[in-house]
Amino acid sequence: MYVDLPEAELREYHGSGREPADFDDFWSTTLAGARSHDLAVTVEHVETQLTTLDVYDVSFAGFNGQRVRAWLRVPAGTSAPLPTVVQFHGYGRGRGDEVENLLWASAGYAHLELDTRGQAWSGSRGATPDEVGSGPQVPGFMTRGIESAATYYFRRLITDAVRLTDAARELPLVDAGRIAIFGISQGGGLTLAVAGLVPDLAGAIARVPFLCDFPRATVITDAKPYREIGEYLAWYRDRADQVLDTLSYFDGVNFARRAQAPIWITAALMDAICPPSTVFAAYNNYAGPKQVTVWPYNGHEGGGVDDDLLTLGALREVLGR
Amino acid sequence: MYVDLPEAELREYHGSGREPADFDDFWSTTLAGARSHDLAVTVEHVETQLTTLDVYDVSFAGFNGQRVRAWLRVPAGTSAPLPTVVQFHGYGRGRGDEVENLLWASAGYAHLELDTRGQAWSGSRGATPDEVGSGPQVPGFMTRGIESAATYYFRRLITDAVRLTDAARELPLVDAGRIAIFGISQGGGLTLAVAGLVPDLAGAIARVPFLCDFPRATVITDAKPYREIGEYLAWYRDRADQVLDTLSYFDGVNFARRAQAPIWITAALMDAICPPSTVFAAYNNYAGPKQVTVWPYNGHEGGGVDDDLLTLGALREVLGR
Amino acid sequence: MYVDLPEAELREYHGSGREPADFDDFWSTTLAGARSHDLAVTVEHVETQLTTLDVYDVSFAGFNGQRVRAWLRVPAGTSAPLPTVVQFHGYGRGRGDEVENLLWASAGYAHLELDTRGQAWSGSRGATPDEVGSGPQVPGFMTRGIESAATYYFRRLITDAVRLTDAARELPLVDAGRIAIFGISQGGGLTLAVAGLVPDLAGAIARVPFLCDFPRATVITDAKPYREIGEYLAWYRDRADQVLDTLSYFDGVNFARRAQAPIWITAALMDAICPPSTVFAAYNNYAGPKQVTVWPYNGHEGGGVDDDLLTLGALREVLGR
Amino acid sequence: MYVDLPEAELREYHGSGREPADFDDFWSTTLAGARSHDLAVTVEHVETQLTTLDVYDVSFAGFNGQRVRAWLRVPAGTSAPLPTVVQFHGYGRGRGDEVENLLWASAGYAHLELDTRGQAWSGSRGATPDEVGSGPQVPGFMTRGIESAATYYFRRLITDAVRLTDAARELPLVDAGRIAIFGISQGGGLTLAVAGLVPDLAGAIARVPFLCDFPRATVITDAKPYREIGEYLAWYRDRADQVLDTLSYFDGVNFARRAQAPIWITAALMDAICPPSTVFAAYNNYAGPKQVTVWPYNGHEGGGVDDDLLTLGALREVLGR
Amino acid sequence: MYVDLPEAELREYHGSGREPADFDDFWSTTLAGARSHDLAVTVEHVETQLTTLDVYDVSFAGFNGQRVRAWLRVPAGTSAPLPTVVQFHGYGRGRGDEVENLLWASAGYAHLELDTRGQAWSGSRGATPDEVGSGPQVPGFMTRGIESAATYYFRRLITDAVRLTDAARELPLVDAGRIAIFGISQGGGLTLAVAGLVPDLAGAIARVPFLCDFPRATVITDAKPYREIGEYLAWYRDRADQVLDTLSYFDGVNFARRAQAPIWITAALMDAICPPSTVFAAYNNYAGPKQVTVWPYNGHEGGGVDDDLLTLGALREVLGR
Amino acid sequence: MYVDLPEAELREYHGSGREPADFDDFWSTTLAGARSHDLAVTVEHVETQLTTLDVYDVSFAGFNGQRVRAWLRVPAGTSAPLPTVVQFHGYGRGRGDEVENLLWASAGYAHLELDTRGQAWSGSRGATPDEVGSGPQVPGFMTRGIESAATYYFRRLITDAVRLTDAARELPLVDAGRIAIFGISQGGGLTLAVAGLVPDLAGAIARVPFLCDFPRATVITDAKPYREIGEYLAWYRDRADQVLDTLSYFDGVNFARRAQAPIWITAALMDAICPPSTVFAAYNNYAGPKQVTVWPYNGHEGGGVDDDLLTLGALREVLGR
Repeated sequence: MYVDLPEAELREYHGSGREPADFDDFWSTTLAGARSHDLAVTVEHVETQLTTLDVYDVSFAGFNGQRVRAWLRVPAGTSAPLPTVVQFHGYGRGRGDEVENLLWASAGYAHLELDTRGQAWSGSRGATPDEVGSGPQVPGFMTRGIESAATYYFRRLITDAVRLTDAARELPLVDAGRIAIFGISQGGGLTLAVAGLVPDLAGAIARVPFLCDFPRATVITDAKPYREIGEYLAWYRDRADQVLDTLSYFDGVNFARRAQAPIWITAALMDAICPPSTVFAAYNNYAGPKQVTVWPYNGHEGGGVDDDLLTLGALREVLGR
Repeated sequence: MYVDLPEAELREYHGSGREPADFDDFWSTTLAGARSHDLAVTVEHVETQLTTLDVYDVSFAGFNGQRVRAWLRVPAGTSAPLPTVVQFHGYGRGRGDEVENLLWASAGYAHLELDTRGQAWSGSRGATPDEVGSGPQVPGFMTRGIESAATYYFRRLITDAVRLTDAARELPLVDAGRIAIFGISQGGGLTLAVAGLVPDLAGAIARVPFLCDFPRATVITDAKPYREIGEYLAWYRDRADQVLDTLSYFDGVNFARRAQAPIWITAALMDAICPPSTVFAAYNNYAGPKQVTVWPYNGHEGGGVDDDLLTLGALREVLGR
Repeated sequence: MYVDLPEAELREYHGSGREPADFDDFWSTTLAGARSHDLAVTVEHVETQLTTLDVYDVSFAGFNGQRVRAWLRVPAGTSAPLPTVVQFHGYGRGRGDEVENLLWASAGYAHLELDTRGQAWSGSRGATPDEVGSGPQVPGFMTRGIESAATYYFRRLITDAVRLTDAARELPLVDAGRIAIFGISQGGGLTLAVAGLVPDLAGAIARVPFLCDFPRATVITDAKPYREIGEYLAWYRDRADQVLDTLSYFDGVNFARRAQAPIWITAALMDAICPPSTVFAAYNNYAGPKQVTVWPYNGHEGGGVDDDLLTLGALREVLGR
Repeated sequence: MYVDLPEAELREYHGSGREPADFDDFWSTTLAGARSHDLAVTVEHVETQLTTLDVYDVSFAGFNGQRVRAWLRVPAGTSAPLPTVVQFHGYGRGRGDEVENLLWASAGYAHLELDTRGQAWSGSRGATPDEVGSGPQVPGFMTRGIESAATYYFRRLITDAVRLTDAARELPLVDAGRIAIFGISQGGGLTLAVAGLVPDLAGAIARVPFLCDFPRATVITDAKPYREIGEYLAWYRDRADQVLDTLSYFDGVNFARRAQAPIWITAALMDAICPPSTVFAAYNNYAGPKQVTVWPYNGHEGGGVDDDLLTLGALREVLGR
Repeated sequence: MYVDLPEAELREYHGSGREPADFDDFWSTTLAGARSHDLAVTVEHVETQLTTLDVYDVSFAGFNGQRVRAWLRVPAGTSAPLPTVVQFHGYGRGRGDEVENLLWASAGYAHLELDTRGQAWSGSRGATPDEVGSGPQVPGFMTRGIESAATYYFRRLITDAVRLTDAARELPLVDAGRIAIFGISQGGGLTLAVAGLVPDLAGAIARVPFLCDFPRATVITDAKPYREIGEYLAWYRDRADQVLDTLSYFDGVNFARRAQAPIWITAALMDAICPPSTVFAAYNNYAGPKQVTVWPYNGHEGGGVDDDLLTLGALREVLGR
Repeated sequence: MYVDLPEAELREYHGSGREPADFDDFWSTTLAGARSHDLAVTVEHVETQLTTLDVYDVSFAGFNGQRVRAWLRVPAGTSAPLPTVVQFHGYGRGRGDEVENLLWASAGYAHLELDTRGQAWSGSRGATPDEVGSGPQVPGFMTRGIESAATYYFRRLITDAVRLTDAARELPLVDAGRIAIFGISQGGGLTLAVAGLVPDLAGAIARVPFLCDFPRATVITDAKPYREIGEYLAWYRDRADQVLDTLSYFDGVNFARRAQAPIWITAALMDAICPPSTVFAAYNNYAGPKQVTVWPYNGHEGGGVDDDLLTLGALREVLGR
């Protein structure tokens, strides 16, 4: 069933959140900090049984110089730069295994996928630790370090994502001028963030994106992971303002206002995990060229394979091939 | 948590079912009937955005000559016969979309996947109707036509699966001497069935197979789809014997006794959907070379990507490459 | 809790659906096709332990001439025509057993109840097959043949229902001039359909009717069976228009616009299975004399035995006795 | 799925409970107390729309002389004594409405059904209060007055049931020499109790009976209503012995040892509400002629309409007709 | 997620209920009846292992003179009157054990807590019976005697609560001029009732109070215990008016209109058990000095320990210390 | 319902786990490392509204010298050393608020309660961070750092617990020769660990202890938190041996073999969270004087307030007073 505003109202909804005055400072300082570490990209060919694709194990210096992993897949025998899609993953997923997620390289792109630090217990495995501790938190990652923007988990993860785009540009098999970014759910939220922080991206695809319009998201659904924040505030009742302040530095709505890359966004009207109003809050504020696809009968699976086809179409449009 | 017998007892458990005296007659008659129809294989190249693989839309005459669909995927540019893996799908899944399920062809095999007649509402889409009606039934496919072996849905589906292996041998890109069959859950049950009905297969992989040891399966779990049968018998109380008689013609245990291809089977100790004792009933009766892998902490997802790697290893062993 | 619009808005709500231009043609063609088959009514006395009622096993040619079953119950010893109530059943129910559903004949009416083709796995048993296959579908009957109005399951079931009223008029124990129709849930939807398709009915009672205002019904509740349609469209995303087009030929709202028999309708404000707005959409469009009863604290059970008493009162009013 | 011992063990299982030394004294004293009140049977014809049955509103002095209600239904126009079936109801059900439960009278018997004091919130309505208060209790009736046998709710209800058989013998339309008793679930437990307390009954039918083998019942299932007792003991941890002592005066196993009427008992192997071992504990101890029917694929619905047919057969056997 | 009106509308919402013309008569008659019995307060020192507190077992004549229990706790060695907090408990809780609920006496107050008659199966134990029987009811206490205001369970419980404040004033360790009342959920509802019925209270704290605005409460949530009333009316469909009439004598909104003591009320925006609009209906009608605290991210746990701190602050304000 | 072995078998069950050869080395090295940091105990009086108790905010150097918090509560005005109870908390709970958990000090003991690093999202709040990051993990704390004993979260938490007993002995209000330890669930597991690692404790009370017999615990229940480990191994299938090796350093069974303090252990037969066999595995191996209490009708709440009374009795026995 529909879980949110009628579609006509969605198209007018601009979000309920705040934008901190020092939002840009926060991120420029954060990224400068990360970039003060040598990226130190490593690329190692991985033996697999795949014959049509080559797979490389990539690592680089992410937040605070911590080592972060990624996979690079390209059509077998690729030796020259390719248009590239950089993918960020959904909540609970790591970069997975070498032989998973073959579509994007099979379509002729270099495909780089970020390992999600500390996550990877649902949907796929991972290999990158989150090396930072935290204060008392609700199980999961939504409240890890939520006491301040400086300590929040997503500061580290978004920085990793930005640094992966930096790393991409150093890879010999990547055409640095033709990079698109892409993600579903949390990966869509990261896509919005990177689109707002990194210039010169060819395009972006954010499917049923998470991490948007937190003030509304945390009160209109009981579904996790947004619910983790509500569970935290149910105990730490006096920290609502502090927590919403932290979250405002990570809200897709604020990133959207700064983004310039052409974007494709999808939303689902029965999605209780990333309710469509939160998605539209980002979409309606998005500063660059944009289009939105609405799936009326879907939950958080969104367009599924239809969204894959939509993504392939978008990639062709912005990356050529 | 463990849902079935301790592992030591699993390794000794041989099943609770019956074998009808005319089991072989039933199937030779059924297959002869299907084979009396011209296979009439069609192969049509499909335009996709994939650059590393070619995809073909295949159709052939299945049960009673009804048109059944399949996908064939091969490495791009393949023009000579390849060792081939034929895949059958899990309950609720059709053959899916062109751009899904890329692993097997990306590993250098011809990959042929059967569209599951009438199914396709969960996990992937399909395009093949089940053209036959049925008496009153529980929603789903487990009790469609269960009044008799002749009318049972799985008579049609297993025949389709056998005919797909017939069709494979007619395809120019398939090396008819090097065909392995493979499936998960319902696909694993179909794998056992085809292994028992079709000679000269190079190998078989049946992961957490369904459709085994029905008399036990229908009373030791409340999980669907086995539960559909229990729901039927909860209303049609006087038909238990008739229904178990029907099911005995489709029980993986009986097919296993006749199979000769080397097989890899997997079972999961927390699998309430296809409880491990039902899997071991088939495994312990399997007549050909065999090995079993037990996943102690998994449910019906079984080994997941680890089972994919296991499958790739098995394919390499029996198909070469 | 209330699951839908406030009662005042319900009373003004006229539905969200479309009416196909060829609605009347579709049905006149469909019924003419069915009527081209000889009704071939059979009536066979059934031995039971009942002493106050006689029970007859009735069959007739339904959709496409397919044999459909029904029960006829009358007060013991009845030999002259009686005012008659024809009953259609809820989703999942067949005609049941001889000794069930005794109220209506015990109240002095001839009582004829339709066996629901292919259904009968919940609430009562049945004996009538649905002899027609279908394309890939969600388990259940809501998406069986939903690709087109011509192939949709409910085309067959509604035709059966109409033909049962034809058959009723041929039965010697039925007073052909005093026939009322009646049903609950799916049976209520069938009641609306027959009321819209068959003239000269004495009255109709549709309790918490199903099959109304599909465009709204499929998006305001997660309860099955409406949800089956949503599950289908969640996979077959590009068929929403096609599916809603199919459904428009079977929407109780469109039948209501054509109906002339006096009707009693009931709705329940906590009914998530047949939400009250969908019921009011039919009620508010109903062309004949009408009254509605609203149960504020009930779910889909509606008025239960109070609805039985209401039905007895309505029958007395339109059938005499 | 099966919820209890294998059937072979069920057939040997004799229960885990105790029998109080003063069991017979307790009940003879209790019944003598009730019988010290004038039964004061009242019978009032009720106007209904039924034409084949006559319905009477009956009342009599139950426990402690409190007024208890019942329905009497007979074939219309009955004026001479009939063989009679006395029915007790399941947990949560009252005697229901006049026009419900028509089968037994429609089969030619006088049918007398007890209103369950204080209950009647699920399945059917009632009109008889439980006039006695209680100490702290878990919601429901299982722990009402459970502090002692003297105060326990079921002392009152069983006494009502016995007194209804006394009342039956005073009714002019009842053949006092041909009375059978019957019930499902709680009604089955009451049937066992009355069979153990009242001589000269023609027969008894106890379907999936409740109120048996409490010590085991309260620890092998989480289903209510047995669970109510466990919830009580989860708080009042020091009262387990006291509570089991109370319950021993109401355990169907102890009544069964004293019963002489021929009995039909049914049990269902998937019944978590009245697990089959508790039913067999009563059956295996039953002192009179007995037969048991086991439904392998059913839960607490047991044989449903098949149990109705079984009951009709049993009634014919013991009551004639 | 938010379960009710937006906060701005909550602050304007005044309830949906009725006020019976004889509300004041009903209660003055009821209380006069209770007060016609000698209070007969008993106080007995209880041996515990506590060294900082003394505990006394108190009893008094409650409704109809029935003996009701309470605990009195005071700082060890207290021999002179103290400012006192009288506590009423939540649904399902009795007065608990001697060594529980130590906060209020540890803060220097005399703390008197009412045992809830007949309840005590969840959260804490109790020792006070409800000596009165009832007509057919839904399990629980919400429909016990709901046929009329005279027989309703809460007439007895509220009277007990009033009488406990009478008893408090007779206790030598209680400063009769400094008594505050306090409760959570049902205890909050009782607090509102006592505030409306007893003059000269120093203050009141009603946290997430229950028993308010029944007409709305019974239709906007499916959570128990309000749902018990809906379950009753789902069967006894013709008694809605009668039941709402009964409930109007016990509605916190009507008590609030008469109350003069300064009150602190709390409400939680995610509370489906006592939805915030029902709380605000009482708050907005409260006649005395008042303040409300809203917890945005909490369910029925409300402010938890933060509400305890708030309560301590309120007690200090009205009782001194 | 019973969830584990019959009680007679529980009393003979000694566990399924392994004991690493270097278990003692591991812990002596770990504790030596922690003790190489100055304990640096701080004690600060906290203003509360409590009049009968004094509360102090305590901190000390825990694992790796990281600052860990605790509360100390004593009867108001205490200035000389008291017998002391040190409490560890259940999973998800921190030390809570100043005004919570008053029982133990109200009984005349010094009461010191450990803040659980990083936890505190359920049941009570906390203030101590877990300053250490981890590899990919399942949400919660059971798999944080589970790759090795050195990195496992519980290495840190157990060390904190040991160091709190060190700190206790430095506190002026604690009688260092009369210290008992106590905990419920995770707190019970910590109690077993500390009992095995710290000599000269006066006594220990471990109620429904967690963290025992991991190899069995992870396969006989689906309840969290044990299930977190199973969820991890469901993805990281090749790490079962590694994980069980890690866990063997933290298994209550191994600590029990080394413990000398008299212990009271409780277990509940319906406890699916800490199944009784895992508790008995520790109990049956416990080396010191011991007694066990079994609650037959309880789940993980165990004896609740009855366990509190049991604990008070045990404290009196070992600490005097």
